[in-house]
Amino acid sequence: MFAVEVRDHVMIAHSFRGAIFGPAQALHGATLIVDAAFIAETLDANGLVIDIGKAHKSLEAVLAPLNYCNLDDLPGLKNTNTTTEFLSKHIFDQLAEAARAGSLGRDARGTVANLRPFQSSPRRR
Amino acid sequence: MFAVEVRDHVMIAHSFRGAIFGPAQALHGATLIVDAAFIAETLDANGLVIDIGKAHKSLEAVLAPLNYCNLDDLPGLKNTNTTTEFLSKHIFDQLAEAARAGSLGRDARGTVANLRPFQSSPRRR
Amino acid sequence: MFAVEVRDHVMIAHSFRGAIFGPAQALHGATLIVDAAFIAETLDANGLVIDIGKAHKSLEAVLAPLNYCNLDDLPGLKNTNTTTEFLSKHIFDQLAEAARAGSLGRDARGTVANLRPFQSSPRRR
Amino acid sequence: MFAVEVRDHVMIAHSFRGAIFGPAQALHGATLIVDAAFIAETLDANGLVIDIGKAHKSLEAVLAPLNYCNLDDLPGLKNTNTTTEFLSKHIFDQLAEAARAGSLGRDARGTVANLRPFQSSPRRR
Amino acid sequence: MFAVEVRDHVMIAHSFRGAIFGPAQALHGATLIVDAAFIAETLDANGLVIDIGKAHKSLEAVLAPLNYCNLDDLPGLKNTNTTTEFLSKHIFDQLAEAARAGSLGRDARGTVANLRPFQSSPRRR
Amino acid sequence: MFAVEVRDHVMIAHSFRGAIFGPAQALHGATLIVDAAFIAETLDANGLVIDIGKAHKSLEAVLAPLNYCNLDDLPGLKNTNTTTEFLSKHIFDQLAEAARAGSLGRDARGTVANLRPFQSSPRRR
Repeated sequence: MFAVEVRDHVMIAHSFRGAIFGPAQALHGATLIVDAAFIAETLDANGLVIDIGKAHKSLEAVLAPLNYCNLDDLPGLKNTNTTTEFLSKHIFDQLAEAARAGSLGRDARGTVANLRPFQSSPRRR
Repeated sequence: MFAVEVRDHVMIAHSFRGAIFGPAQALHGATLIVDAAFIAETLDANGLVIDIGKAHKSLEAVLAPLNYCNLDDLPGLKNTNTTTEFLSKHIFDQLAEAARAGSLGRDARGTVANLRPFQSSPRRR
Repeated sequence: MFAVEVRDHVMIAHSFRGAIFGPAQALHGATLIVDAAFIAETLDANGLVIDIGKAHKSLEAVLAPLNYCNLDDLPGLKNTNTTTEFLSKHIFDQLAEAARAGSLGRDARGTVANLRPFQSSPRRR
Repeated sequence: MFAVEVRDHVMIAHSFRGAIFGPAQALHGATLIVDAAFIAETLDANGLVIDIGKAHKSLEAVLAPLNYCNLDDLPGLKNTNTTTEFLSKHIFDQLAEAARAGSLGRDARGTVANLRPFQSSPRRR
Repeated sequence: MFAVEVRDHVMIAHSFRGAIFGPAQALHGATLIVDAAFIAETLDANGLVIDIGKAHKSLEAVLAPLNYCNLDDLPGLKNTNTTTEFLSKHIFDQLAEAARAGSLGRDARGTVANLRPFQSSPRRR
Repeated sequence: MFAVEVRDHVMIAHSFRGAIFGPAQALHGATLIVDAAFIAETLDANGLVIDIGKAHKSLEAVLAPLNYCNLDDLPGLKNTNTTTEFLSKHIFDQLAEAARAGSLGRDARGTVANLRPFQSSPRRR
């Protein structure tokens, strides 16, 4: 099994609802680092899992509607707690859809997109 | 010459004014990693530059009024472009004042606070 | 599947018995970085895997009896080779027990604790 | 399940054939960081997955024929696109063979070698 | 004093002449990570040291003639030991020239370019 | 001005005397990462600051008497608080002496050894 990873990041503002979030209930922000891994059982004729340039562009396209935004104002997200966990799935779903639509340059049936959780907290590094 | 560094971070929302900032003119956010170095020519009787626990607490105290905030709403900052460069100096000045006030636990005359610029962009790591 | 990771570290002294350990048979020490991942199939009503504050506290509580200790002197460990591998399992078992006891704040049946091996050797980073 | 990782690197020159590789069709080079993980279900009598010294030496031995080379000139590789993906498998196969031959110091039947893809691009770090 | 850093990398092939270089006398390659720091005594009217977008583009432009190349074949470098140290100065000189020519967007007299040595060896990280 | 850095680490046990050290007054341990930078105004005839192989060996030789030791038992250190700051100077002095004795392979008058403080706490990374 082979995996290729690409990394990008977004800078967003948002707030949370619920006492469990403590001070993060106020409007604040975060730099979210996104690592997306693309996985395949076999390499293609070029010896590649995927065209890494297309993978970078797909990830950039998925992140563009979030970058430099206040997520509390975005139509699809405004009534949601946009936790790191929620955003991981949101981005994963978009990448998987891009893969199915062929934007990753390889027959999507041989590729599975696997998005690792954001490293939202620099302390965890 | 000896240096001891402490690291902390803040999660803030803000926006910029000026065409040079492009999409960052919109309300967005950032996780800002702060490295503060304390420098001394000689070690004290314990073989230390500074009490690292007090250094951590001083940095935490300086960052607390910024953390989980929208900087555009803070009284002292609301009419300012809170760039990474500006915030570096803002935090440096507060730490230097804390040192002069003795909160770092050592005779402040023998210690110089030196704050490195934030690493605001994960791409730069 | 979702995962949230927390990181902490301990500073311990210990020694090993067995020729395979070479110079590490002498009393020496290590800073051990511990990454603990908590995994769930679904997010809870807040959009979270787990309360990350409680996860940090649970890990800190599990590590406290080891931190700043000579493991060769601890009642439960004194006749054991406290290798990184052994300590991984030791910490994993304690975290899993804490999860079952409910200290992670979520119904433990929906959560699995997965501890990655320590990164005990900075060369490996 | 337990895992122990070792890291090493090689500095190689190579070129690729195929329009998909763009400017990398020219003779260029790369520093390739190799992380190899060795996995076992149980610890041995010493509390170890594997003798980490032997693991380091095995990885070094597998990498030696590649290091400081132009891969385009190596007999076994000269007609191949030596992509990061291809080289991952090449190195994995050699390590697995070393494990079967007993060079990792533990009964190979209880150990599985798992090689993670190279991190060939510093941008991805 | 303020500093802003940008990072990029190049993937090059080259060889060295001189017994001191040992196996690196053969044609091999390297991924060279380049950190360039731009320094100023005061911030400009926008609260910036420099337009970070222009700094990224300047560094990219300086690196472009080296990237995906065999340095042994480049007209200006072919009779030179292109050590990491040599390349640091080569890139520094080009960046300083770009700054003097105004491509960094700020009055160059108020800015000093300072290039840190390459981190050519991943082991050193 | 040019700088070349080498990195190594030691695994030591020690204890501190003085209430300021809190729980670190007990016998514990640490993995200490050592970065040593060698600085020169000009490059030598090979385009180098220093023979990096010799620099690695010099650092390894300086660290060997500390590695896998309980510093509280070492003749020259047993009555000392072996803080990170103290050890930085201890190692710096040994490296400077090695440079003066010619073990770094270049005329020592043209080279200055500069040792950065240990990164003893993984949290600070």
